[in-house]
Amino acid sequence: MHPFSQHREETIASVGEVRLLQYIREWLGGASPSSPRGMGDDCAVSDARINLLTNDSLAYLRHFDDNADPVQAGSKLLKRCLSDIAAMGGQPEDALVALFLPPHTRLEWLERFTHGLSRCAIRYSTRIAGGDLTETDSFLAATLSLTGWSPRPLLRTGAEEGDWIYVTGTLGGSIRGHHLVFEPRLAEGNFLARRESIHSCIDVTDGLAKDLFHILDSDLAAEIAVESLPPSDPCKSAWGDNQEKLLEHMLTDGEDYELLFTLGADEDLEAFEADWSEHLRTRVSRIGRIVSRGEAPALRRPDGTALTTKGGYEHFGAS
Amino acid sequence: MHPFSQHREETIASVGEVRLLQYIREWLGGASPSSPRGMGDDCAVSDARINLLTNDSLAYLRHFDDNADPVQAGSKLLKRCLSDIAAMGGQPEDALVALFLPPHTRLEWLERFTHGLSRCAIRYSTRIAGGDLTETDSFLAATLSLTGWSPRPLLRTGAEEGDWIYVTGTLGGSIRGHHLVFEPRLAEGNFLARRESIHSCIDVTDGLAKDLFHILDSDLAAEIAVESLPPSDPCKSAWGDNQEKLLEHMLTDGEDYELLFTLGADEDLEAFEADWSEHLRTRVSRIGRIVSRGEAPALRRPDGTALTTKGGYEHFGAS
Repeated sequence: MHPFSQHREETIASVGEVRLLQYIREWLGGASPSSPRGMGDDCAVSDARINLLTNDSLAYLRHFDDNADPVQAGSKLLKRCLSDIAAMGGQPEDALVALFLPPHTRLEWLERFTHGLSRCAIRYSTRIAGGDLTETDSFLAATLSLTGWSPRPLLRTGAEEGDWIYVTGTLGGSIRGHHLVFEPRLAEGNFLARRESIHSCIDVTDGLAKDLFHILDSDLAAEIAVESLPPSDPCKSAWGDNQEKLLEHMLTDGEDYELLFTLGADEDLEAFEADWSEHLRTRVSRIGRIVSRGEAPALRRPDGTALTTKGGYEHFGAS
Repeated sequence: MHPFSQHREETIASVGEVRLLQYIREWLGGASPSSPRGMGDDCAVSDARINLLTNDSLAYLRHFDDNADPVQAGSKLLKRCLSDIAAMGGQPEDALVALFLPPHTRLEWLERFTHGLSRCAIRYSTRIAGGDLTETDSFLAATLSLTGWSPRPLLRTGAEEGDWIYVTGTLGGSIRGHHLVFEPRLAEGNFLARRESIHSCIDVTDGLAKDLFHILDSDLAAEIAVESLPPSDPCKSAWGDNQEKLLEHMLTDGEDYELLFTLGADEDLEAFEADWSEHLRTRVSRIGRIVSRGEAPALRRPDGTALTTKGGYEHFGAS
């Protein structure tokens, strides 16, 4: 749906700020607790235990376009942050939303966007505790901040030589739909946080190759068994007959929103994987090991050659 | 300072996202704790006690323009949220910042903006715990989310018939500079939170008249002694010879960032005011009382006539 209208009566300009805020609270429904836990005072008052904080933004024509259902765009705004909470092994608590809206924003678009946000919040037990509205000339975007709690926050740092590298779900081709409909890996993160043998974790958002770098310190390398990487269905149907292209997309496509984590070398792999299968339905793939860096590339195949010559997505045009 | 440049070498596009994030962390300096308390992982991990959450946005040409020192714009972004925390009687803890930047943003502008933010954070013991960067075509804005802790969160609701109404500082004419250089009333809010006799509190951001409404339920009215309202110096020098204009600006100008609060009817006014003067330097003015609404206007003078015929600032053009 196109978010704007030239007919004033269809736009947010026709209702004004006070009524618009009332509408938004109605649309949020059960996702928005009553004041002071929710909107209506200078701050929201939370009684949750909080030790995680994250934020993320979504801009029209950058993270979604007219082809996106506004319901999906609204849920994506929250799910990107939920994926961050999942990567720390946490559960979500309270969210704050900042909207940037031009006056010609369609009321119907905003209603559907807000419904997407509220349904997702209810599904993942997150409260929309507060918000902020800024009028723009033509820019349409939103920022969501999310608090959460993890009994043992999983960090990117912590991988050790010998660790086994795992990834949840499948990789690549997210642009063909997955980036709007993905499931944040909250149950999986929670499972990992309760196991001391998990040394590091990150959510894969910039492409596996780029995100692998984040769990390596300067002494470590990742040795990846290319044939164990799990291609997504869209990735397989698009590039299944070209192994090089398939690999490139699995390694560098953004927005997989899967968890990449490492398991200590001393652990019983079979027991861990059986435990996973018993508790979780999500696929998990053992894709390689953490090794000492030495002279070979930091991302390498078992024969020591570079895994890829391309990086992930880089913003602002410089390399 | 104009935030944009046509010379690529002066802009953020010349450095790319990875180095830009490094720069921002350098510019934040001591305001940005090391990971995992600060930036660098999927979430920031906080060990603070948190029960307050607020967010606010700042957009170029809406909340500041080329006349504003970017240092002041950066500090204003944080101070608006600090004022919300102050209104709940809290102290600030961790902040998350979301930046919306076009590629032609001047590096120097961003450096000065970030310095303003970090200096303000250090001054008010706030940590910049995380951030998010979104590339735009031409829109420049920022959203800040702030957590805090209050031993007794002061709410807007809670005013009772007979309460005395107070306001800190002075009112009106903020556009002449105060909106960039104001001091969030954190010490004052903390003072109020520790006194059970304070029934309600709000920070004055949309003009006193509009914000007074927020502390009134449908049965209550505010009776304001017009002569006790404290005009700001810019307000006095601009409209000192026109009492009607002066009153209008004190009641409806936005961005005072003062605290408006009510004190229980049973309290000893002289003792409260002496206690205030002993602990705080900020002026406080007793401006009226909460009364039963009855038939007269909700905002009224002691003779029952309406206080003003104008409201505060309304966004999105509708009334």
